[in-house]
Amino acid sequence: MPASSSQTIAVFGAAGYAGSLAARLLHNHPNFDLRWVTARSDVGNRLDEIYPHHRVPLVLEEADIDRHGDVDAAVVAYPHGASAPFVAQLLARGVKVVDLSADFRLRDVETYEEWYRPHPEPDLIAEAVYGLPELYREQISGARLVANPGCYPTATILALAPLARAGLIADAVIDAKSGVSGAGRAATDKTHFVTVDENVNAYGVPRHRHTPEIEQELAVLGSETKVTFTPHLLPLDQGELVSCYVTLGDPTVSTGELEALYHDAYDGERFIELVTEPAGVRAVRETNICRISLHRDERTGRAIVFGAIDNLWKGTASEAVQNLNLMFGLPEGTGIGG
Amino acid sequence: MPASSSQTIAVFGAAGYAGSLAARLLHNHPNFDLRWVTARSDVGNRLDEIYPHHRVPLVLEEADIDRHGDVDAAVVAYPHGASAPFVAQLLARGVKVVDLSADFRLRDVETYEEWYRPHPEPDLIAEAVYGLPELYREQISGARLVANPGCYPTATILALAPLARAGLIADAVIDAKSGVSGAGRAATDKTHFVTVDENVNAYGVPRHRHTPEIEQELAVLGSETKVTFTPHLLPLDQGELVSCYVTLGDPTVSTGELEALYHDAYDGERFIELVTEPAGVRAVRETNICRISLHRDERTGRAIVFGAIDNLWKGTASEAVQNLNLMFGLPEGTGIGG
Amino acid sequence: MPASSSQTIAVFGAAGYAGSLAARLLHNHPNFDLRWVTARSDVGNRLDEIYPHHRVPLVLEEADIDRHGDVDAAVVAYPHGASAPFVAQLLARGVKVVDLSADFRLRDVETYEEWYRPHPEPDLIAEAVYGLPELYREQISGARLVANPGCYPTATILALAPLARAGLIADAVIDAKSGVSGAGRAATDKTHFVTVDENVNAYGVPRHRHTPEIEQELAVLGSETKVTFTPHLLPLDQGELVSCYVTLGDPTVSTGELEALYHDAYDGERFIELVTEPAGVRAVRETNICRISLHRDERTGRAIVFGAIDNLWKGTASEAVQNLNLMFGLPEGTGIGG
Amino acid sequence: MPASSSQTIAVFGAAGYAGSLAARLLHNHPNFDLRWVTARSDVGNRLDEIYPHHRVPLVLEEADIDRHGDVDAAVVAYPHGASAPFVAQLLARGVKVVDLSADFRLRDVETYEEWYRPHPEPDLIAEAVYGLPELYREQISGARLVANPGCYPTATILALAPLARAGLIADAVIDAKSGVSGAGRAATDKTHFVTVDENVNAYGVPRHRHTPEIEQELAVLGSETKVTFTPHLLPLDQGELVSCYVTLGDPTVSTGELEALYHDAYDGERFIELVTEPAGVRAVRETNICRISLHRDERTGRAIVFGAIDNLWKGTASEAVQNLNLMFGLPEGTGIGG
Repeated sequence: MPASSSQTIAVFGAAGYAGSLAARLLHNHPNFDLRWVTARSDVGNRLDEIYPHHRVPLVLEEADIDRHGDVDAAVVAYPHGASAPFVAQLLARGVKVVDLSADFRLRDVETYEEWYRPHPEPDLIAEAVYGLPELYREQISGARLVANPGCYPTATILALAPLARAGLIADAVIDAKSGVSGAGRAATDKTHFVTVDENVNAYGVPRHRHTPEIEQELAVLGSETKVTFTPHLLPLDQGELVSCYVTLGDPTVSTGELEALYHDAYDGERFIELVTEPAGVRAVRETNICRISLHRDERTGRAIVFGAIDNLWKGTASEAVQNLNLMFGLPEGTGIGG
Repeated sequence: MPASSSQTIAVFGAAGYAGSLAARLLHNHPNFDLRWVTARSDVGNRLDEIYPHHRVPLVLEEADIDRHGDVDAAVVAYPHGASAPFVAQLLARGVKVVDLSADFRLRDVETYEEWYRPHPEPDLIAEAVYGLPELYREQISGARLVANPGCYPTATILALAPLARAGLIADAVIDAKSGVSGAGRAATDKTHFVTVDENVNAYGVPRHRHTPEIEQELAVLGSETKVTFTPHLLPLDQGELVSCYVTLGDPTVSTGELEALYHDAYDGERFIELVTEPAGVRAVRETNICRISLHRDERTGRAIVFGAIDNLWKGTASEAVQNLNLMFGLPEGTGIGG
Repeated sequence: MPASSSQTIAVFGAAGYAGSLAARLLHNHPNFDLRWVTARSDVGNRLDEIYPHHRVPLVLEEADIDRHGDVDAAVVAYPHGASAPFVAQLLARGVKVVDLSADFRLRDVETYEEWYRPHPEPDLIAEAVYGLPELYREQISGARLVANPGCYPTATILALAPLARAGLIADAVIDAKSGVSGAGRAATDKTHFVTVDENVNAYGVPRHRHTPEIEQELAVLGSETKVTFTPHLLPLDQGELVSCYVTLGDPTVSTGELEALYHDAYDGERFIELVTEPAGVRAVRETNICRISLHRDERTGRAIVFGAIDNLWKGTASEAVQNLNLMFGLPEGTGIGG
Repeated sequence: MPASSSQTIAVFGAAGYAGSLAARLLHNHPNFDLRWVTARSDVGNRLDEIYPHHRVPLVLEEADIDRHGDVDAAVVAYPHGASAPFVAQLLARGVKVVDLSADFRLRDVETYEEWYRPHPEPDLIAEAVYGLPELYREQISGARLVANPGCYPTATILALAPLARAGLIADAVIDAKSGVSGAGRAATDKTHFVTVDENVNAYGVPRHRHTPEIEQELAVLGSETKVTFTPHLLPLDQGELVSCYVTLGDPTVSTGELEALYHDAYDGERFIELVTEPAGVRAVRETNICRISLHRDERTGRAIVFGAIDNLWKGTASEAVQNLNLMFGLPEGTGIGG
């Protein structure tokens, strides 16, 4: 591909796990020209000193909208609340943005403010597109602002979308398990090796912030319900499994009918793998793939659906690149193994 | 303690993880005299060659009821179906038995035969006592045959007993997570380090054999319901967490009332720890303790209860010793950290 | 690249860790057309059922030289001794071969027979080229039989080559650490998760078979010496670190001179990374890269050199592809991240 | 044992891994009465909130010599340099002290100051006894100040003492491997789960501070030599292996003679296990045991000795209790599994 066809891009907030992986994928991407990586911490250090395995030889700079905002596209990996104002500035300059924060995921500002904080840019919410490519491919293609989903919502919504669309989800318990990279780069008691090793426990009980995001999307798809969502921390680095226990609105639906819903939804999808054995995370490590298995508990009537992703890849950074590919009319899997 | 007060004991099936740990605990127990350890594999080897950390210097022998059956007590760690006939022989000789298999856990022979296989000794079922000391202390004290609970049922029933007794469990989803020692010593693709490392997946979906055991005990306690029980394999060696999502029969019950049920049930219990943070397994590693936390999801009304144990200790071997202590009138915590 | 330019290839022995990864790399390689994967076990199963993360949709067949031998190239992943006769048959048919076994690594048949077993095809040894591309690029390019190095020798020889060439190695202690995938797919007590987890121990003490291979190559390069080589098993899946403690033949050589040797040898090498901090394995996971750091213990005069690789990639399968690229005149890094 | 026979004790610096484990062992010790636990961080928190598995229900207080110094004995777990002045105050009050820092390990103040910092209490060095009970049992019994060895020196010196005493160590390379608890409780990039998981690398190259301590003790025992000591960090929590490669001063000594030296030294030792297979750390987890295996590399003449300990137990806290037992005339293994 001729150099002239490359889009310039910057990753704002590249010192964290998600931003640095996005930088790596874009640095190696044939159609993007990664110009800048910025951060609050580690300014002046080369990214490949902090993350040698990413091999991105760029120096982290302090973000400066005048210096770094003159690009075609941006990935913003800022904390919730800090992201929206910066995204607004980028959009004002005509930059297409994929935002990794939660700031534009919730379509209802009141819900956002109930679960997070006062919203700094409520007027932008309406135009943001929820960046789950398998569900909203067309809208993403035309968007200038994409709200990249949370990692848990990515796995959960992909796992449940076929049931949600059929209006079949009367109730759902979602027991999620995540590797430690999901907790971020901050070194704390909770991410210390000795705390995590040989351990497993839930956290964010009973009100994890990904709950309203999951409920919103299930409702949009066709199943309005309140879910119980409970994440657990596991002694592994990357990988996320959601175990979804669904009480079906119509208990007479056959297992074969349920399976057909999944095949109809996903058989053509490059990054979805339907499997019959319970999905495991090792099979999707360092990929943009979501692996899904559907089971039926005949005794209780429940559907049990497992969704496995790599939280940093399909759950965050490679999904962001998938969205960027769509936004710029590129083949959807470019640069992410597709 | 004078030697005359010691009870002679044998562990049949001591080459596995559960049996060998039982052997260790009994070898170090002040009131039992571990005479024999038997096995089908590894006959002729010293147990401390196979399990150096247990430091039991006895030689594994092939089981011979005439040679090894002349003891006061026995722990039988045989596979389901193989255990019952051997237990019958031991009982006939007057030996008190704790059976680690499932053969005498289910009080209804038809349920056993539906989930396992034809029962070899159905007449013995009636006299077997279900060996959860915190619930059935008195019956265990008078028993000559105790059916040691499965590891998942131990954690689950202890976590849910206060709700079950109050008749409050209308429905329950139990998402269980276990370390690899729960899968046993057999070296297979599933227990290979490279399979388990950086992985998590469910197994035994949707009909794990511990389901009827859990349902039986909840019903005995006061809540008759069908549960969805799904275990997962985790990259850790010992440790088991059950995450129980309970739909309450009476949604108006307050969280304070629920908490009171737990304190009433467990405040005097040496081996139960009620905690407010979500219970984790690292805190109970190599102990006979079950750590329980109760939470309320106000949005859905559900109670969420976590129960954490060491699957080889409280889930199997140290619970067996706790039962033996009761059967022989010893302080319940002798030899198991009590 | 037009299809006509593709070379047909087969992987014999594709059910193991090394063979299956070679199959994956070749299945995705733009210039090779992976026609066959064979195995002794798992015949009739698709490779992606056994190794889902490799995503190779070919069915394992029993090897049949008539059916599978009509290819341009082959990777043979057979046990030592079993490999040589099969390689001979392939060569007789004009197939270019990369052999992953030890059968053609040792140039002296007596040394082979002392450490391994009677050699089945001693006449072929002379023409085999030792497949370390960074050292023997030219010879590999013209070879029809390449002996792929052992994983430990790959890391060790790359770490020590600059010193060896300068004749500086008077004595060396090599303490190696490997992830469990290095022990292979066989499920045994030694590879059981519960054995490896929270453990570390040496094995193959004091005569591991990679010793003569290391000594041979150091001698060829210019330093004839006997080394002490001791591998250890670590609780990780992929990754290998060699810690080399070298007594220098000339203790007056300065650290700067030593560093210059490394830069002269490796500065242009795509797959060698010279670093100043002690090399770690996480930075090379799933890459063809060997990461090397050189240090000087001024108190004893020793040079300390660390070499880190992924044992399955640079240590085996991606190195095999690197060799194949050279043998077929392709850019050396094609299909392996280069 | 009557209460009157108990010795009062305090642990100063109980918020870290070593101090908190010492607190646990002393809290459960039949002959010590743990009165105080102090810390700089976490003051006001109960120790069992920070370390639930230790189950010590005492509240951490800020250290106050007047309030906490009125005890029979103390364990001081302070940083190097901070320890000595506080130890001096305790001694002045007649308190017997086991100091876990390096402040009194090196008998030569100049060596201390070269590797650490200016020594705050050089006059006390002379009376400090190096606390390796297997080597200095008698001196420890009469001491009022015991310098608890470093974890690496504990394993290394025990592994090499029989050779050192025989004057056989001409040169030694010590490659050490440690679990992450050895790096302490501080949450940093280096102890973050994601940094350590699937990784191994050396640190402290080439001048780790345990080097002079090892050299001092080998010299005292009879072998004056400079050693190369290199520690590595491993993905496990507790456990430490030293792999010692020894060039023998007398290469004609037979392997049988070497073995005899070890049996003579250790056959009666409760906490030393001589084994023939390479010693591994899992077998000594949570014990006061050092497991040692001796091997001979006939090709190079070297002796290879492995020493495995739990770095927090025998490497620090249980060794401290072993020293305290000796200092107070108690059976040496009391309260530490002996």
